[in-house]
Amino acid sequence: MIERIRICADRPGLFEFTERVVEVISHAEESSGVCTLFLQHTSASLLIQENADPSAREDLENWLNRLVPEGDPLYQHTQEGPDDMPAHIKAALTATSLSIPVIEGRLALGSWQGIYLWEHRRHPSTRTVVIHLTS
Amino acid sequence: MIERIRICADRPGLFEFTERVVEVISHAEESSGVCTLFLQHTSASLLIQENADPSAREDLENWLNRLVPEGDPLYQHTQEGPDDMPAHIKAALTATSLSIPVIEGRLALGSWQGIYLWEHRRHPSTRTVVIHLTS
Amino acid sequence: MIERIRICADRPGLFEFTERVVEVISHAEESSGVCTLFLQHTSASLLIQENADPSAREDLENWLNRLVPEGDPLYQHTQEGPDDMPAHIKAALTATSLSIPVIEGRLALGSWQGIYLWEHRRHPSTRTVVIHLTS
Repeated sequence: MIERIRICADRPGLFEFTERVVEVISHAEESSGVCTLFLQHTSASLLIQENADPSAREDLENWLNRLVPEGDPLYQHTQEGPDDMPAHIKAALTATSLSIPVIEGRLALGSWQGIYLWEHRRHPSTRTVVIHLTS
Repeated sequence: MIERIRICADRPGLFEFTERVVEVISHAEESSGVCTLFLQHTSASLLIQENADPSAREDLENWLNRLVPEGDPLYQHTQEGPDDMPAHIKAALTATSLSIPVIEGRLALGSWQGIYLWEHRRHPSTRTVVIHLTS
Repeated sequence: MIERIRICADRPGLFEFTERVVEVISHAEESSGVCTLFLQHTSASLLIQENADPSAREDLENWLNRLVPEGDPLYQHTQEGPDDMPAHIKAALTATSLSIPVIEGRLALGSWQGIYLWEHRRHPSTRTVVIHLTS
């Protein structure tokens, strides 16, 4: 089973879409297998992180923004805006694909795990994630 | 085939569990396919690294500890202890899931590759890894 | 379907091999599924990145070289050369395996995505990537 979902990212940061994946999985015939998530972009990432305390996600963003700042004189690739090259670097340091086992129709996430799109660019985007379920 | 294994992590650092995965795979009916490893936690990681020289793993830990130190004034999320937010950041920079092909009943690891749990927190934990084998 | 491909990396940096994967996929009986790529080495990485502008890839390499420089006094593991420990750290921060859905015989890559081997060592190497396609 393969589906595409589209996620609106109207600002940089983390957008949880765990429930979207749960819904796609619920339509599948397979009750167990592996769910593959693949992001079709190079300036955003997929992330599994704690979904309990929003301050943890803010710290995560602030920390990565400090590690990979805009305006670094190292960058030659600046013609697509000051947030473009940092976005590619952030994407390289994080995940483009995730593989999550499915057991009896349920994603085998831990108690505190949520699935996030991590948008690294400032202009609003709609991002596409391909979801595949194999048995 | 899906199994859960539990790994005791009594300190921060790298814990090799390659042999545990080999054992699980050996019980499978499928002789070839893909082995998916998924960690159900957000303050530890999965890592494939050199299993020859322990000094390489120590350097890896020391380097990441220096990049993501405790006590950074940037952190707002501090109520779960000084090692909690660094653990989430380290987890975001490393892997939560790994996919390893299996060929004729054997993990297709390179000669020097071992599979590790990377514990980022200081208090002793038991961590759960879900192992799925698909054909 | 499982195949091994070998990629010549005669310098540190990014080597696109998207077309090699496309060719392997084209021989498969399965028309849809997931393509798993697994790198059998611990001092190189797999990366999905923009394949349009070479300056973005140069910036990526220069940025990571600055983050993980050679000659850091932190390193104990120096006997395999000054570029060995930085290579292991870079590999830990990036991907060893990637999972890419295949839809009607085509890799579900985004418009600007290419698949790269990221060589982190200075001496010329031939690196092996295992490619598995599951339905």
